[in-house]
Amino acid sequence: MVAGRSVLEVASDAIDGGATAIQLRDKNVSTRTLVEEGRALRELTRKRGVLLIVNDHIDVALAIEADGAHVGQDDMPAELARKLLGPNRILGISAGSLDEAVAAIMAGADYLGVGPIYATRGKADAGEPVGLSLISEIARRYTTPLVAIGGITAENAGEVIQAGATGIAVITAVVNAEDVSLAAHQLARAITV
Amino acid sequence: MVAGRSVLEVASDAIDGGATAIQLRDKNVSTRTLVEEGRALRELTRKRGVLLIVNDHIDVALAIEADGAHVGQDDMPAELARKLLGPNRILGISAGSLDEAVAAIMAGADYLGVGPIYATRGKADAGEPVGLSLISEIARRYTTPLVAIGGITAENAGEVIQAGATGIAVITAVVNAEDVSLAAHQLARAITV
Ligand code: NI
Repeated sequence: MVAGRSVLEVASDAIDGGATAIQLRDKNVSTRTLVEEGRALRELTRKRGVLLIVNDHIDVALAIEADGAHVGQDDMPAELARKLLGPNRILGISAGSLDEAVAAIMAGADYLGVGPIYATRGKADAGEPVGLSLISEIARRYTTPLVAIGGITAENAGEVIQAGATGIAVITAVVNAEDVSLAAHQLARAITV
Repeated sequence: MVAGRSVLEVASDAIDGGATAIQLRDKNVSTRTLVEEGRALRELTRKRGVLLIVNDHIDVALAIEADGAHVGQDDMPAELARKLLGPNRILGISAGSLDEAVAAIMAGADYLGVGPIYATRGKADAGEPVGLSLISEIARRYTTPLVAIGGITAENAGEVIQAGATGIAVITAVVNAEDVSLAAHQLARAITV
């Protein structure tokens, strides 16, 4: 449950609003619950034609046949994550610096989660904002898709894309919105050039 | 760290005292830390010829090439755990009732963790003690090895084995002991008939 709504409802509304990928991320539930949520999201995302990515838990990603997994710097090391996932599933890796970005690309990342771009209250462990400069810096050097994360809203999403991000990931802006679908719509409109 | 000692020190002392398997179980650390602890334990357990089992995290078990994984009723469902582990790694499943024991055996458990036998302070989520009768009940019907867990000490270990357990698993009695090796020795002596 997120703010009184089920994970499935929020995901469904976000897809209505234009989300093209859903990330299952829940640090506070048992693996059993994560698998159950993941199975429900797998059914939904398959039906709606959007990607499903599981955060941290490669085992859950494999168990529910997700499209891929995302690992942060405190999660499974990237090389091991790639080995467990195999070559065909999507591996996303968080990068909060150019060094981390280079290491992630070398380890076989299919995309990078770059951030936090702005200050955020969505993740307690998110660290200091890295700003738009990191996005531009990586985009100048590499072709790996960059998903910007951290404090992104309909107001600033445009400049994030202009800086070189391929897409944006949002937690707080959509999940805590009164109208999830509308919030996602506004974000989708903001990044459509 | 457990009570000021590293996971590796405690495991090494427990092996000195006669432990034949080490279970990596740490609910409060990142996956990255779990992998690092697991790699160190893998090296130790290989050198000392004892089994290494990872609790809950099948991905970590595979990543560090553990001998197997253990899942509880709140972890990865047993059928999925078996599928991810493959046929050759050890799958242990917790059972706190005869129904759970039967389901676990049907799902392909290589051993059952049965308990909590006695009241315990080692796990906050351990539930009501099931006593020795569950061990006897399962042992009468099945040949699957039964590892008794929960409140087992050098004083009561003998009767647990007599009831039909193949072995015992201890957290509190060894990890919190002043002398881990001695505590493990006393337990090992208690269950040697
Ligand atoms: Ni996990």
